[in-house]
Amino acid sequence: MTDLLTRCRVVLVRPHYAGNLGATARVMRNFGLSDLVLVAPYASTGDLDARRMATHGLAVLDAARVVPDLGAALSDCVFSLATSSLTAGVFRSGTIGTAAEQMPELLAAAESGPVAIVFGPEPHGLSNEEIGRCHGLVNVPSDPASGSLNLAQAVAICCYEFRKAWSKRLNDARGKPEIPARAVAPFADQDRMFEHLRHALTEVGYLFGEKGDSLMHAIRQLVGRAMPTPQEVKILHGLARQLLWASRQMKRDGAGDAPEADSRDKSDG
Amino acid sequence: MTDLLTRCRVVLVRPHYAGNLGATARVMRNFGLSDLVLVAPYASTGDLDARRMATHGLAVLDAARVVPDLGAALSDCVFSLATSSLTAGVFRSGTIGTAAEQMPELLAAAESGPVAIVFGPEPHGLSNEEIGRCHGLVNVPSDPASGSLNLAQAVAICCYEFRKAWSKRLNDARGKPEIPARAVAPFADQDRMFEHLRHALTEVGYLFGEKGDSLMHAIRQLVGRAMPTPQEVKILHGLARQLLWASRQMKRDGAGDAPEADSRDKSDG
Repeated sequence: MTDLLTRCRVVLVRPHYAGNLGATARVMRNFGLSDLVLVAPYASTGDLDARRMATHGLAVLDAARVVPDLGAALSDCVFSLATSSLTAGVFRSGTIGTAAEQMPELLAAAESGPVAIVFGPEPHGLSNEEIGRCHGLVNVPSDPASGSLNLAQAVAICCYEFRKAWSKRLNDARGKPEIPARAVAPFADQDRMFEHLRHALTEVGYLFGEKGDSLMHAIRQLVGRAMPTPQEVKILHGLARQLLWASRQMKRDGAGDAPEADSRDKSDG
Repeated sequence: MTDLLTRCRVVLVRPHYAGNLGATARVMRNFGLSDLVLVAPYASTGDLDARRMATHGLAVLDAARVVPDLGAALSDCVFSLATSSLTAGVFRSGTIGTAAEQMPELLAAAESGPVAIVFGPEPHGLSNEEIGRCHGLVNVPSDPASGSLNLAQAVAICCYEFRKAWSKRLNDARGKPEIPARAVAPFADQDRMFEHLRHALTEVGYLFGEKGDSLMHAIRQLVGRAMPTPQEVKILHGLARQLLWASRQMKRDGAGDAPEADSRDKSDG
């Protein structure tokens, strides 16, 4: 399924700044995309700023194709999305969506052939005519008062969402998430650990008398809220064992019958 | 609910390139964030590259605070996430998540006070010690072979996901009653408590040698994830005091030089 990532083309229409070419190549590489097409660019991939910003994406930059117009960039594509910060006008609501909404559709289309995300020039974005040539419109939700996203940032977020869609599809196919869900220790294991800890904290003189129960309750609440992993439950068992050992040392030597009043008064705040 | 966006601080630790300061300010502005803190920066917000890249984010750039260390950047935060492209090592699996998974949690924490996303310097990212001071770790899933994301691109994706979580919450919340936020102890208070606890756990023989640091990390993570209340922080101070008292009892009587091998072997699972 890796090839679906390489089937997603990034098209930059008349890009002005070389730094954006490099930053685009780098972030495409970060998310596993590789097909970059420049339509009548003002900036050159050979520019020092482009190469400096590309870092690990230099191969993507060097493989970028330059074409004279949008039609040439999209000629073999089965589906394409235009990007725009403006969502009113040309398009009907049905074809507009956020990056998170649209990328799963673009990915599905990629099963059938090359697809493209099209970005306009830095100063003003795509023309209405250019938007009209694409199959849909994608928008990155942002603060309406803030001005538009930087070109390479917009590319980053679209590539990120495309990879997310790809990753989800991959996992759905396998039935597993890419990063496995966090394991949480089952209640019975937590309960045994809390009993172990209660015993140890009592022996070491921390829990005693009336306030002992409410202190232990507070500790259970705190740790329970964090939903401890099995590993963390083991770590707390280890702590309990060490405290029991320490309390035996104290008792063996006849010390420690009366914990400091001072430490006790403040222990429950 | 707009204020939840402004409660999310972006912390750049020792940033090297002025262009990244400007691009960070711009994209924060795009997504409605405004609180930028720079820890011992090499680059200056007055640099031409910073100002050129900031465009509509100049106000964010100009309001950026410079602090000497990470503790100062996080002192009033109730929750913080470190970013890293590496997800093995220091951290246990329990505290790692993708930006999409972690940002809703960070947003929920913002109900209780300022929260932060912490980004490391361009060459190598955050140190293990810096990662360990945060409450959790966030990762942007990318091609493992591609090298790391550009700093400002990583900021963009985290801010984008934070705004997405905010936007979803806003939609979900319409027509639902507000639940009062739980009080959470600020970072500086938690930090003092963890140092107290580290000292006590060392004295009582639980933390020692190579594994001491990673055990303490695990405990910080576990408690930090629960977002302890000021009351719970006091309770843990009380525990530290009691353990220090117990260790003095042991030492006064000349016992306790060598903890049981048995308790030690199992303590980290």
